[in-house]
Amino acid sequence: MGDSIYANYPPPLNSAQREFLVTTIKDWTTQNGLMVRPAPTLVPREINPHGVLATNAPVTLFPSPFPRACFDEARALQTVYNHLYAMITCNEEWLGKIMEDLIDVDDFVSHLWKTHLAVKKEGYVQTLSLGLFRSDYMAHTPSSSDKPSLKQVEFNTISASFGGLSSLVTSLHTELLDSPPGYPIAYPAHNLFKSNKPPENTAVETLSAGLAAAHAAYGASNSRPAIPTCILFVVQEGERNTFDQLALLRRLTKYHKIPVFRILSSEVLDHTTIPSSNPSRPLIYRPPHASSQFEVTTVYLRCFYAPTDYTSERDWDARLHLERSAAIKCPTVLNQLSGCKIVQQVLAESTGPDHLASFLAEVDQSVIARLRATFAPQYDLSSTGRGRDLALNPAAAANHVLKPQREGGGNNVYKTAIPEFLRSIPETDWKRWILMELIHPPAEAKNVALRSDGEVIRGDVIGELGVYGTILWDQARGTVLHNEQGGWLMRTKAKDVNEGGVATGFSSLDSILLF
Amino acid sequence: MGDSIYANYPPPLNSAQREFLVTTIKDWTTQNGLMVRPAPTLVPREINPHGVLATNAPVTLFPSPFPRACFDEARALQTVYNHLYAMITCNEEWLGKIMEDLIDVDDFVSHLWKTHLAVKKEGYVQTLSLGLFRSDYMAHTPSSSDKPSLKQVEFNTISASFGGLSSLVTSLHTELLDSPPGYPIAYPAHNLFKSNKPPENTAVETLSAGLAAAHAAYGASNSRPAIPTCILFVVQEGERNTFDQLALLRRLTKYHKIPVFRILSSEVLDHTTIPSSNPSRPLIYRPPHASSQFEVTTVYLRCFYAPTDYTSERDWDARLHLERSAAIKCPTVLNQLSGCKIVQQVLAESTGPDHLASFLAEVDQSVIARLRATFAPQYDLSSTGRGRDLALNPAAAANHVLKPQREGGGNNVYKTAIPEFLRSIPETDWKRWILMELIHPPAEAKNVALRSDGEVIRGDVIGELGVYGTILWDQARGTVLHNEQGGWLMRTKAKDVNEGGVATGFSSLDSILLF
Repeated sequence: MGDSIYANYPPPLNSAQREFLVTTIKDWTTQNGLMVRPAPTLVPREINPHGVLATNAPVTLFPSPFPRACFDEARALQTVYNHLYAMITCNEEWLGKIMEDLIDVDDFVSHLWKTHLAVKKEGYVQTLSLGLFRSDYMAHTPSSSDKPSLKQVEFNTISASFGGLSSLVTSLHTELLDSPPGYPIAYPAHNLFKSNKPPENTAVETLSAGLAAAHAAYGASNSRPAIPTCILFVVQEGERNTFDQLALLRRLTKYHKIPVFRILSSEVLDHTTIPSSNPSRPLIYRPPHASSQFEVTTVYLRCFYAPTDYTSERDWDARLHLERSAAIKCPTVLNQLSGCKIVQQVLAESTGPDHLASFLAEVDQSVIARLRATFAPQYDLSSTGRGRDLALNPAAAANHVLKPQREGGGNNVYKTAIPEFLRSIPETDWKRWILMELIHPPAEAKNVALRSDGEVIRGDVIGELGVYGTILWDQARGTVLHNEQGGWLMRTKAKDVNEGGVATGFSSLDSILLF
Repeated sequence: MGDSIYANYPPPLNSAQREFLVTTIKDWTTQNGLMVRPAPTLVPREINPHGVLATNAPVTLFPSPFPRACFDEARALQTVYNHLYAMITCNEEWLGKIMEDLIDVDDFVSHLWKTHLAVKKEGYVQTLSLGLFRSDYMAHTPSSSDKPSLKQVEFNTISASFGGLSSLVTSLHTELLDSPPGYPIAYPAHNLFKSNKPPENTAVETLSAGLAAAHAAYGASNSRPAIPTCILFVVQEGERNTFDQLALLRRLTKYHKIPVFRILSSEVLDHTTIPSSNPSRPLIYRPPHASSQFEVTTVYLRCFYAPTDYTSERDWDARLHLERSAAIKCPTVLNQLSGCKIVQQVLAESTGPDHLASFLAEVDQSVIARLRATFAPQYDLSSTGRGRDLALNPAAAANHVLKPQREGGGNNVYKTAIPEFLRSIPETDWKRWILMELIHPPAEAKNVALRSDGEVIRGDVIGELGVYGTILWDQARGTVLHNEQGGWLMRTKAKDVNEGGVATGFSSLDSILLF
């Protein structure tokens, strides 16, 4: 099945077809805000001193085929995954034990954990916690005769991005498939296009509804006298993916009628305060351009997710400041930590305690089994056992990747390089690594991408599907107030792009056609 | 009244307010497609070889005040104006007589007239004609104690642009006035903002509905066998105002479900044909990127309006080719000619035959009087009379402008320079000029503009309001099938910008607040 679908897709383009499609997409992206700010390597600052220029986000010309059964399964499991990561976050003791080793060696995780402990010591004033999650998968297809299965790449609990732009790519491809209306000729004819459209993509609606639910759950102002309330987006300096964030902001403003402000992470301490006189610790935002003030119900972090986001102690102070406030955090430090690779590995362990069953006590066993089936096999290398056996055997290692446990960087080691690498480091350090079975996306997948510099590149690709979910829960009671799934992201990378993201080739936003 | 409104408007901005407003507007324009392609002087071609970059259209930071009575009057008169120009277009004899003199001296008008005569000789196969018009006005305010009155600057019968972007500027200012929702602080407080929003702007809906009405009226394909029908936008090479046009295209495609193609004027003869075997002369469009063909119901010209649009005889061949086809033209050559300055002057003549009364036989006298009141006094200088008296008297001339009758360029002569200028040319040439009383926009009007290069400039401004209208009529019978008004444009220019459009200063898209 996979064979026939990927083998002759996408249809070839002659030069007139290519010219039409590329011109149409360039215009469409600009007309509809499917844009990014250009990298300084593309447009030097002296050409664009006021930062007015924008260019298309990198997009594929065609939607990519994706197995319907895998897509349906990913959506069906999303609220279960939401629940799982909320419950993990509620279990500070379990999470602390998992992190124990890491805290010693990983400055970043250690700093996050200390931030949590500091607020814990003072006492949290906000028990509600919001997650805007994205679970990323591949359609695992070891050989073209195999039925593809859904395998999770990672689960994102902080700054899960591209919901805004992904919805737009879905609209772009959907319109092209019926352009002009009734007599589609934008794409050359192909069997996959017959009565087929990308599935609905509600990423913007779903993610915004999550933020709106938190805003509503926060309730009235804790300030005396009461002041207006708002949601605060905290963003990175030099962010180029602004329009992805603004898609959520527009929805919250125009549909939910909620005041939303964006603030740089470096400005948090300048423009927000927690009045010491108010024991409920409301987070007060004072817009620099007005004399009014707003009480922040919900802090949405689109920063602070990577070690590089903390350039000085002041950034950690800002994170602590937000964490101890009464604002609902999306996410809290604990919720961010639940997304560490090591948690994924512990959940996937096939021996030892059944963590899934205990976190998902109310979930049907058959559903837990389906969720477990999305895990790629992962092994701890701390002691003798199956993990070490596989890693040291060149034949077995060839089907694996070695990933550092640390969140703060380090490179993956692939396939047959694994045994040699392990023998080159002290055995006591092996515990810092996770061995993971490789996921095999469809080998024959191809697409064509329009990069942000206007180059058009055709090639072999790897597609990664993300499914969005939102959950609002009470961290103290372990109860769930809002749990939804909706919206998705297809990211398509040229095969020659490794994890590091080499500049040649491409990594593009895409959509899907189910088969 | 005018005094107090303009004197303290717009409110001053401190640097934080300005920074917030400019950043918000830059982001908003990019997110919502209020964009233009950058001029080569802004972004050299080597930086942007694939033409992917875009920048904001020039926009004002604030909406401009405009007298409600003038706005209401302009809207109330638009369908009457539509009707007037349709009836003028139907009266080829009248129009020909007006043009007679010009045809001798103006190559452009002469070429257009010959195009009409050539098709007339062969016989027109399409009697339906579509007008997408814009009538431009100023709020004439000779002194701040005068009640402003509505005076027409010009009436556009071809390529009347900015409907698409103008609607977006209205949305931008409307959103800023209530940003964040419920607690507006994007603008500093000002009396004019209290419970005040720009009026609804339906330019995109109205103009698209006009094109859709023509498409429907064309009816079924004249080809045997029948083929799908479409609307064709004919556009200029190097067009930077693409997104204005695409706003109409999107509406026609998504809402009216009509196939629309854009084609360069230089490609008309390459990609369209009129089969010689078919006496009904359907215009057949063959998209270069597909093997299918479409019959063009409606040709919408966003080119061919200025002498510079015709670089060779081939461009005139293309215009003739379109004119003789069965497609409904927006506009026909005759309808384009009805928009000449000289027609406006003849209509405004206070002596001689009452042209308005004869063209608008079914219209109430009081309405005709209101329409006539929008004319600035204009005079023919061909013979002794009031025109020559005013032009040669320095005191009277100081309140006038001298405009060349020719459409093909020539510079205006202003105020006290008029008598001297006339005496410097042979008296036999005086008939080539029209004397027009100056329109005085509010003297104290100010605004702040964000240019496409990101510069922000504050200054004294002149605002020009355009009102859009569409009309579909039968040129042979003089009957009207569709006549609507809707949507408007506010263009605001720095006072130091003359008609020529000096590069310093600005000319920006704006919206209005009524008072």
